[in-house]
Amino acid sequence: MKGLTFVGLGLNDEAGLSFRGLEETRNADSAFIELYTSLLPEFSLKRFETLAGKKVTLLSRRDLEEANGEALLEAAGQGCVVFLVPGDPFVATTHAALRIEAEKRGIKTQIIHGASAISAVIGLSGLQNYKFGKTVTIPFPETSSETPYNVIAENRERGLHTLCLLDLKADEHRFLSVNEGLQALMAVERKIQKGVVTSGSLAVGAARVGSVNPALKAGWIGELLKYDFGGPPQSLIFPSELHFMEVEALIRFAGASEKLRGAVK
Amino acid sequence: MKGLTFVGLGLNDEAGLSFRGLEETRNADSAFIELYTSLLPEFSLKRFETLAGKKVTLLSRRDLEEANGEALLEAAGQGCVVFLVPGDPFVATTHAALRIEAEKRGIKTQIIHGASAISAVIGLSGLQNYKFGKTVTIPFPETSSETPYNVIAENRERGLHTLCLLDLKADEHRFLSVNEGLQALMAVERKIQKGVVTSGSLAVGAARVGSVNPALKAGWIGELLKYDFGGPPQSLIFPSELHFMEVEALIRFAGASEKLRGAVK
Repeated sequence: MKGLTFVGLGLNDEAGLSFRGLEETRNADSAFIELYTSLLPEFSLKRFETLAGKKVTLLSRRDLEEANGEALLEAAGQGCVVFLVPGDPFVATTHAALRIEAEKRGIKTQIIHGASAISAVIGLSGLQNYKFGKTVTIPFPETSSETPYNVIAENRERGLHTLCLLDLKADEHRFLSVNEGLQALMAVERKIQKGVVTSGSLAVGAARVGSVNPALKAGWIGELLKYDFGGPPQSLIFPSELHFMEVEALIRFAGASEKLRGAVK
Repeated sequence: MKGLTFVGLGLNDEAGLSFRGLEETRNADSAFIELYTSLLPEFSLKRFETLAGKKVTLLSRRDLEEANGEALLEAAGQGCVVFLVPGDPFVATTHAALRIEAEKRGIKTQIIHGASAISAVIGLSGLQNYKFGKTVTIPFPETSSETPYNVIAENRERGLHTLCLLDLKADEHRFLSVNEGLQALMAVERKIQKGVVTSGSLAVGAARVGSVNPALKAGWIGELLKYDFGGPPQSLIFPSELHFMEVEALIRFAGASEKLRGAVK
């Protein structure tokens, strides 16, 4: 059967893949993978190929963004193809154009879902998904932007938490850290001065969520700037109004100070 | 080693589990599961026990909410225990109290993430995660509530899409459908009359996301009310301002009318 199946690799390494994803990969006529849109810190393509029992072609940013995935689309026009991507496919905007192009060419597409950093970071933090507003990505400093600050401020006005993803270019081994993300936001704070991201604001940093040694630390920004989160990928949460269960979770799971109980309603 | 590992089962059936989750289950001294907080429509506990190579104890709502998971906590005080739950653990508020209680008793907890309906429905729809505001659940009619309507209205004021989960009680085989969710919102519309959920509003319905035959249909509410989404679980999205790639995605993947191109900026 012809077709293109987007398979989510989930988090961290090849063990993040679901059984459904592996079965589809084993049965496919050919398999492609990209590893630049997110970082799976302990993933090995060699181990994955052994597991899948076939050669898996690694596609670069160039193959997908400049050549528009032509090699992959050609293969999918002739047989059953899987395309493996980090996390859960299409949560970000990535590869949406590829999926549309495939359908335009009459190639049937389907998705096999994987664990996404977005739900995983929220779940690990102990904060409640229903209380999150819009998600935002903090870009590298060369694309200086006030957007993340404004998103945090707007969410907070509605009593909503903000998940901030931190920009990364896995193919260039560049990963924005919690520390750099906080510095970028505090630079905007010095300009706009709404008091949204100050050294006394509460934030939660996370790193390597989905691995066996994730880091999670809640504290005032002044504290977080001194905390060692270890390697990438990292992300940030700015909590707004906290339910008492969320306060307990931040104290128990994220090392927040017991003083947090008094600091919130 | 002692401890309690929450394992996300992902979506649809036992093949939604990750390799990491299965390995942890195989190595555990004992394994518990609950299947009432969400529906995995094709899941078989018997097949799962064969895969896991051990007996897996099914916990009811009563075991967890009235008895506070005492059986599970006692086992985790003595050995290495896994607790398997649908989707990705702790995305909703469920089991947060259990995790806090475990840590209070000195039982170390960890999470193995799974695919979540939240990221999966968004990914399948072709809409962009960054453009979603707060998520809301539409309750069964006996808990009539204006909250979901107001969340959609507030998100829309900010140009943001809304994901509406539909209430379910899997242990009572009760699942709110797209049709019932729309009817409930339109009843609020008749009262509040902000023009947010009318028969001419655009919405996207989804069903059985993560299975091999998911349903996805975008259209004006008048159309969706006549559409057969099949069995549960189902969910709804109310799009706000659409990017042209999102319009293409809704037309190509969700059967939206070509007229949608003209109807949005």
